[in-house]
Amino acid sequence: MSDARWLTFLSDYGFEDAFLGVCKGVIARTAPQVQVLDVLHLVNAQDIEQGAAVLASAIPYLPVPAVHLALVDPFRPTPVRGVAIRTADGSTFVAPDNGLTSQSWEIAGGATAAHVLDNPSLWHPNPARTFRGRDVFSPVAARLAAGLAIEEVGTRIDIEDLERIPLRLPTIDDDHVHGEVVMVDHFGNLTLNMHRADLEAAGVHLGDTVELRCGGKTMTVPFTLTYGQVARGRLAVCEDSFRTVTIAVNQGSAASALRARRGDPLVLARVPQQAGPPLADAQPAARTA
Amino acid sequence: MSDARWLTFLSDYGFEDAFLGVCKGVIARTAPQVQVLDVLHLVNAQDIEQGAAVLASAIPYLPVPAVHLALVDPFRPTPVRGVAIRTADGSTFVAPDNGLTSQSWEIAGGATAAHVLDNPSLWHPNPARTFRGRDVFSPVAARLAAGLAIEEVGTRIDIEDLERIPLRLPTIDDDHVHGEVVMVDHFGNLTLNMHRADLEAAGVHLGDTVELRCGGKTMTVPFTLTYGQVARGRLAVCEDSFRTVTIAVNQGSAASALRARRGDPLVLARVPQQAGPPLADAQPAARTA
Amino acid sequence: MSDARWLTFLSDYGFEDAFLGVCKGVIARTAPQVQVLDVLHLVNAQDIEQGAAVLASAIPYLPVPAVHLALVDPFRPTPVRGVAIRTADGSTFVAPDNGLTSQSWEIAGGATAAHVLDNPSLWHPNPARTFRGRDVFSPVAARLAAGLAIEEVGTRIDIEDLERIPLRLPTIDDDHVHGEVVMVDHFGNLTLNMHRADLEAAGVHLGDTVELRCGGKTMTVPFTLTYGQVARGRLAVCEDSFRTVTIAVNQGSAASALRARRGDPLVLARVPQQAGPPLADAQPAARTA
Repeated sequence: MSDARWLTFLSDYGFEDAFLGVCKGVIARTAPQVQVLDVLHLVNAQDIEQGAAVLASAIPYLPVPAVHLALVDPFRPTPVRGVAIRTADGSTFVAPDNGLTSQSWEIAGGATAAHVLDNPSLWHPNPARTFRGRDVFSPVAARLAAGLAIEEVGTRIDIEDLERIPLRLPTIDDDHVHGEVVMVDHFGNLTLNMHRADLEAAGVHLGDTVELRCGGKTMTVPFTLTYGQVARGRLAVCEDSFRTVTIAVNQGSAASALRARRGDPLVLARVPQQAGPPLADAQPAARTA
Repeated sequence: MSDARWLTFLSDYGFEDAFLGVCKGVIARTAPQVQVLDVLHLVNAQDIEQGAAVLASAIPYLPVPAVHLALVDPFRPTPVRGVAIRTADGSTFVAPDNGLTSQSWEIAGGATAAHVLDNPSLWHPNPARTFRGRDVFSPVAARLAAGLAIEEVGTRIDIEDLERIPLRLPTIDDDHVHGEVVMVDHFGNLTLNMHRADLEAAGVHLGDTVELRCGGKTMTVPFTLTYGQVARGRLAVCEDSFRTVTIAVNQGSAASALRARRGDPLVLARVPQQAGPPLADAQPAARTA
Repeated sequence: MSDARWLTFLSDYGFEDAFLGVCKGVIARTAPQVQVLDVLHLVNAQDIEQGAAVLASAIPYLPVPAVHLALVDPFRPTPVRGVAIRTADGSTFVAPDNGLTSQSWEIAGGATAAHVLDNPSLWHPNPARTFRGRDVFSPVAARLAAGLAIEEVGTRIDIEDLERIPLRLPTIDDDHVHGEVVMVDHFGNLTLNMHRADLEAAGVHLGDTVELRCGGKTMTVPFTLTYGQVARGRLAVCEDSFRTVTIAVNQGSAASALRARRGDPLVLARVPQQAGPPLADAQPAARTA
């Protein structure tokens, strides 16, 4: 179980400079047999919450066991310690202890052991304080993927002492749900922090029209299985491919239509006494900007 | 011939979210020995024609045999079926049946068999309708690259029943050629839907000055072997590295100079009774904006 | 030593078209066992100096031995010859002879042999003049990574005849240093062409306040070990992770704060008779725009 071979990599490094390339260089020098799988490198700069949400959503589709290297690490005067966390599926998360991987542990079966990265014999001999990704995290993650026992990376710590980022749960209030935009994807779809059951708890069911309040605007939108069930250019509330509630525009961008961004609050509410023509005709025109 | 090992990947997924990463995760889980080769992931969103043209131009340079996974799949109320198409060179194209790969089959020796992806035992157990790339296409393509017989993916269908995207051919009209911009590359060069023979059929030969009509403007431009034969900042009509006619600015961007975009129509016409000083001096100043 | 297996790749190709994909296709066709490691593909178009600086900074972290393929190649009427340069660490640089790799040779132990790429039997049979990366450089680099002897690529030449790009050194003038911005990274940090010793030669030491003149503005900024030692949103002059002097904003973008770009000149000067409260409090407010 300790020879993962696969090393998945998520960061906020982007592609404009060689930061990512030199980390991969260090991995290749350290453990040439390890295969790197890029999950995402365009996490918003220093946005730990976004990184945490994306990694957790990706975990069910990544190789098992794997070493998951995750690097979103806002600089602090006293740097956050690096940690390696073993999960029940035999995987290991290597990341700063800032909560970035905490939502992913449960999906990987739960954390079973945690060690601080405090064995400098595994690091670059003269690590730079401002690029621990290259000098500490990459060489340690590569060695773990090549079979190093987790006990070798440093002092064992209590799992309870690890930093966690709580999920930002929606609030269900009688006939409406308060939530927020968790992610905006490449196509402009808005992923919310709620599931279908949350809407159902507020009396909103698939096939209903739902009231959407967002950015000072109120509109009614159909709650459909997929965005393909509304006319081109129209808004839909639906389940996305990760089983979470999303707002989409068929062949358009909901982010543009609603001028919505990650973190924006919104409300989905039950519309009383629904009746009338089929959904696709009943909704008002909601077009992309 | 069935053990391709190489899986090439073209899509409109971009790099801002983890869509691409989770597809690669599924491929790695399904067939760890398969090597993924990224062709392009910045096809314009849902632009099947662009994806088809780029893939066809790339095929002569990709490994043989390979599985070519191509995912540009505009959502439709009734989803387009997925297909696997075997070509004479032993390769297999895995894509929605929307014409995305049709221009590539001939380049790979011609289609010899086609199967619908209707064997759900090869898919994710609970496939999302809005992310078939992850739940249907990626696992099937990975298994094919690992050696699965194409007959296993689903029902055999007639090759003639596959959707095709016809090439948008130029029109040759006596002394001029009507065409359009097929691609704008990273450097702003404009690839047209014509070859040198089309210009020759209109009486335009290498070394001539050609009249270019585009976006309401008319100008004369030299027809040279490469854009390096005109002065810095000047326009040239030439053959690009894929043997198609292109419009370029030496050390500049033709797209900026002409404010031209993919799909724009244009005309290249013969200039009667050419004479005078050498080309680089004769042409009017056409500078980048 | 000749079987490098690793092929690192730096270019200005970007990700918007399939140029990079077809080069990787050619490498895979030519030598399927070779592993490609992407260093950077967003070098500014045709910016040889930037490519040279980035590659040199990355070399200490890349696999050894490796074939380093570097493609930034402004078109010239007479194309620059292609060369393969062997270095003392057993690596081979494959690039146009325009100085792109010259700063990297010393870091790799110094050049020990150089050959022109003039053996067309290793190329694409009909190479395009405008895409030598695909038709000449990629197939030759792939063969070298797979074990081809460097003598096979073409005529041996004198190392002294290779084009070089001199480092743009800072000028130390009594109590101030004239330098320039060498790189702007993904986070907006500005890498300068100077080291701590240059500042020390002008009488500026770690812990001092330094006068920064840039873009018509003059301000005082602390010279700290890391940008984490100033308050959030404030400027610092410090050493970056590659041991060069850099200007950064803690949790912000120095490029935005100073409206600075690659190549911009600037001056760092000693502030006479320093005294007063600790640095983080003494500096004026310098916030991101």
